[in-house]
Amino acid sequence: MSKKFTVTPWKVEGDIDYNRLIKEFGTEPLTDELLARLRRNAGGELHHFLRRKIFFSHRDLKWLLDEYEKGNKFYLYTGRGPSGNTHIGHLIPWIFTKWLQDRFDAELWFQLTDDEKFLFNEKLTMEETNRMAYENALDIIALGFRQGKTFIFSDLDYSKTLYRQALKVAKKLTVSTAKAVFGFKDSDNVGEVFFTSVQSVPAFLPSVLKGRNVPCLIPYAIDQDAHFRVTRDITPKLGYYKPAAIHCRFLPPLTGPGGKMSASVAETAVYTTDPPETVERKIRKYAFSGGRDTISEHRKKGGNPDVDVSYQWLTFFEENDEKLKKIHDDYVSGALLTGELKQILIDKLTAFLKRHQENREKARKVLDRFVLKD
Amino acid sequence: MSKKFTVTPWKVEGDIDYNRLIKEFGTEPLTDELLARLRRNAGGELHHFLRRKIFFSHRDLKWLLDEYEKGNKFYLYTGRGPSGNTHIGHLIPWIFTKWLQDRFDAELWFQLTDDEKFLFNEKLTMEETNRMAYENALDIIALGFRQGKTFIFSDLDYSKTLYRQALKVAKKLTVSTAKAVFGFKDSDNVGEVFFTSVQSVPAFLPSVLKGRNVPCLIPYAIDQDAHFRVTRDITPKLGYYKPAAIHCRFLPPLTGPGGKMSASVAETAVYTTDPPETVERKIRKYAFSGGRDTISEHRKKGGNPDVDVSYQWLTFFEENDEKLKKIHDDYVSGALLTGELKQILIDKLTAFLKRHQENREKARKVLDRFVLKD
Repeated sequence: MSKKFTVTPWKVEGDIDYNRLIKEFGTEPLTDELLARLRRNAGGELHHFLRRKIFFSHRDLKWLLDEYEKGNKFYLYTGRGPSGNTHIGHLIPWIFTKWLQDRFDAELWFQLTDDEKFLFNEKLTMEETNRMAYENALDIIALGFRQGKTFIFSDLDYSKTLYRQALKVAKKLTVSTAKAVFGFKDSDNVGEVFFTSVQSVPAFLPSVLKGRNVPCLIPYAIDQDAHFRVTRDITPKLGYYKPAAIHCRFLPPLTGPGGKMSASVAETAVYTTDPPETVERKIRKYAFSGGRDTISEHRKKGGNPDVDVSYQWLTFFEENDEKLKKIHDDYVSGALLTGELKQILIDKLTAFLKRHQENREKARKVLDRFVLKD
Repeated sequence: MSKKFTVTPWKVEGDIDYNRLIKEFGTEPLTDELLARLRRNAGGELHHFLRRKIFFSHRDLKWLLDEYEKGNKFYLYTGRGPSGNTHIGHLIPWIFTKWLQDRFDAELWFQLTDDEKFLFNEKLTMEETNRMAYENALDIIALGFRQGKTFIFSDLDYSKTLYRQALKVAKKLTVSTAKAVFGFKDSDNVGEVFFTSVQSVPAFLPSVLKGRNVPCLIPYAIDQDAHFRVTRDITPKLGYYKPAAIHCRFLPPLTGPGGKMSASVAETAVYTTDPPETVERKIRKYAFSGGRDTISEHRKKGGNPDVDVSYQWLTFFEENDEKLKKIHDDYVSGALLTGELKQILIDKLTAFLKRHQENREKARKVLDRFVLKD
């Protein structure tokens, strides 16, 4: 019996079977062979998200590396739907994207879909999603993306450029395909049905602007795949490459190992602007534990890191494989108690967020140098 | 048995029963009482399009005049889908709009839907519709609209402003309503289903930009009514007035009294750029005649002006009621032959087009002063 789970651009629920997603979405697993090739091209090292298969799936990465090895460099495209504050789950694909930018000397085109969040969220105004877009942009810049190679844009403020290209996509996309891919109904609004056209644009816009076909790699959490299946179907019809893709798992919510961290359910998420005491309180209070009911039972039988959210988060935030292995083994053996494991995570995360928050404040001063408007 | 005819934004066919359209579309007939009130407010005169009920139907014109009489002035909004050269049928609502601008000291917001024509026409590129938009704009300016009170914009080149507002409309419009109003199917593209949102925007954009609610009057040929039924449904939900509307009949195609002149069927249309010899040739060759088969029969029984396209065109282009009545009566009596009637039209139309073409060339120099871009 297969467990039930849902993974769409607007809903992620249940205990996700990532291998089944590869089959259902028709993507390719990231094989060891491909990882070895990535390592070679990346200067001999692999990001821990790759070593640990947090990025686990791809489309056309072989082709992208073929092109790269021929000297045909790619650019990166990823994005964010600015419906609220950034939480640390959002950072996962961006942290990896930063690594790709550095290792492959790649431009990043970063889309803030403030139009989408307005269309899909009954309560949000356009002013709110647009303001949130630039708040979110601070988190992007804080991660260290390179000025002059990183172009961040809000759909609303870059719409003169985007609308023209989105129409080209829209003309090739029937309502019936949009319904099949996204599950839209006739009771949905016409903007929702149109929107994926806008999300497709950055997958070929640099080619339009540079006047030559440039390969594109899109790192994203797997829930956005529906959009890019549409994109990959349409870009060749417009004379551009299909974008390659690389997909990551979700950082699990604090409250349990299933689903996706939600920015709208505060106890499941740690925001990038949370002060240390809030981070500590949330982890202590909500982080789902794989430990035993009593200390003595835990010492005897050990904990279960596979369901323990603190441990799972450390697989994202503790870069050192040996340290992580020791934590794992100590937890399994019972040497490490839940409270101690939580403390390791708290120390790691508050240190990360302290740096991030400093960088985020500095980012305000340089925001304009990263932002494209028309 | 009712005759068959079709009137939609994309197709006009058959022998149109305008009274039935009033009922089917749910508009109001332009009554003599309302015309008298219009005359009073227009400085004591009525345009011959009103005297002859070429403009025959309206929505909320009483309300608009109530507001006007209270000192709450309205602006005008009309537009053009730039799929090809302007023909003289397109000029009809614009000539009337010019009269309204002069008599009511009203701003005109003129939309060129180059996005629509790209989306709905398989063969047209965006570059073509955009270029054609500005060619069509020359015809608008040539009619004498006032600089500083007339704002012409291409959807593509003004899209940063329009897209934002169109999203507000889109969020209130379901796919199901769009299907019901326009007859869209799931095999249509997502841009087509979205587009009416863009055509709604100028019905409230000046209110957005001025920061206060301004009444709007939209003069248009009745085939566009579906769009503005949607607009009128949605603007109050966004906090703006429902636009008022005033509707005209179609200038019949040269080849027969039914349907609408088509820019894509050259023999049915006279273009604003046609030289006099072309106009003469088209009228002589194609203008459907209400005359008799032989001169002697015509002299005896007379012609039928109701189906005679030359006469019908003169009801649009001969402003003088007495002259028109004499032509009518002479044709009915048989005193005026078809060839003579055609000559009257040829003289009238070539004189009109000579002036228009001169003004159209002068318009190139001032185009920029009329055009809004963002």
